[in-house]
Amino acid sequence: MTEAAAEAGNRVLKLLEDAWNDADGEAFGAPFAEDAVFVNIRGEHHTGRTGIARGHQAIFDSIYKGSVNRYEALVVKQLAENVLYVLGHATLHAPTGPMAGDHESHFSVVLSRREASDWQVDAFHNTLIAPPPGG
Amino acid sequence: MTEAAAEAGNRVLKLLEDAWNDADGEAFGAPFAEDAVFVNIRGEHHTGRTGIARGHQAIFDSIYKGSVNRYEALVVKQLAENVLYVLGHATLHAPTGPMAGDHESHFSVVLSRREASDWQVDAFHNTLIAPPPGG
Repeated sequence: MTEAAAEAGNRVLKLLEDAWNDADGEAFGAPFAEDAVFVNIRGEHHTGRTGIARGHQAIFDSIYKGSVNRYEALVVKQLAENVLYVLGHATLHAPTGPMAGDHESHFSVVLSRREASDWQVDAFHNTLIAPPPGG
Repeated sequence: MTEAAAEAGNRVLKLLEDAWNDADGEAFGAPFAEDAVFVNIRGEHHTGRTGIARGHQAIFDSIYKGSVNRYEALVVKQLAENVLYVLGHATLHAPTGPMAGDHESHFSVVLSRREASDWQVDAFHNTLIAPPPGG
């Protein structure tokens, strides 16, 4: 992995993290490709930047209102000159509602760029880390 | 997306599906890159072909003994000449044990190839589709 790849991966995660913590659905959707795929912790999949932005605004305004999310890149792989894969870890604190409490997840992000343009998220796939059996 | 990309994506899913249904951990692991990332439905992440093969053999011999899995590609995107992204849907039937029953999931697969070599799985990320709220 090059320094530049790691930097690009971390930069996009930071954009998403900041957008989440600002409860700004449009900013969250902005780095996604127009036809991006998003799979959430309920296994639901959504397609397209606009839908991803709108869906996030809806959860920022309801079950995740006031929540704080922290993203960390665990693995960044450069699969081609213009394609990155990032394995990330999220720590989410939701103060109220049905998801109140602390949640951890592992997520995969696939990023690509066209020449001379910035990295875009083609796919984001999230899975909640389950409590240990019997725990 | 080219025909060839779709064909490659479907071919790899078929290899994984056949390996699962043959309860053959080594065959399941075979298409993975040496340093591949696997995130399972519990949000646990494993790294490397050998560990992925071994981990699957363990579940094929225990909680998923006798299970039947069907994989379907919903989206195949060619992100670069030698990088593919596949969004898939799995339908799993487990006859016995703690996971007895039918389960559906959405999974993301990232594939790449080096020149003149076959496609390898760099990342596989799986999320169980949750039942509808209150359902």
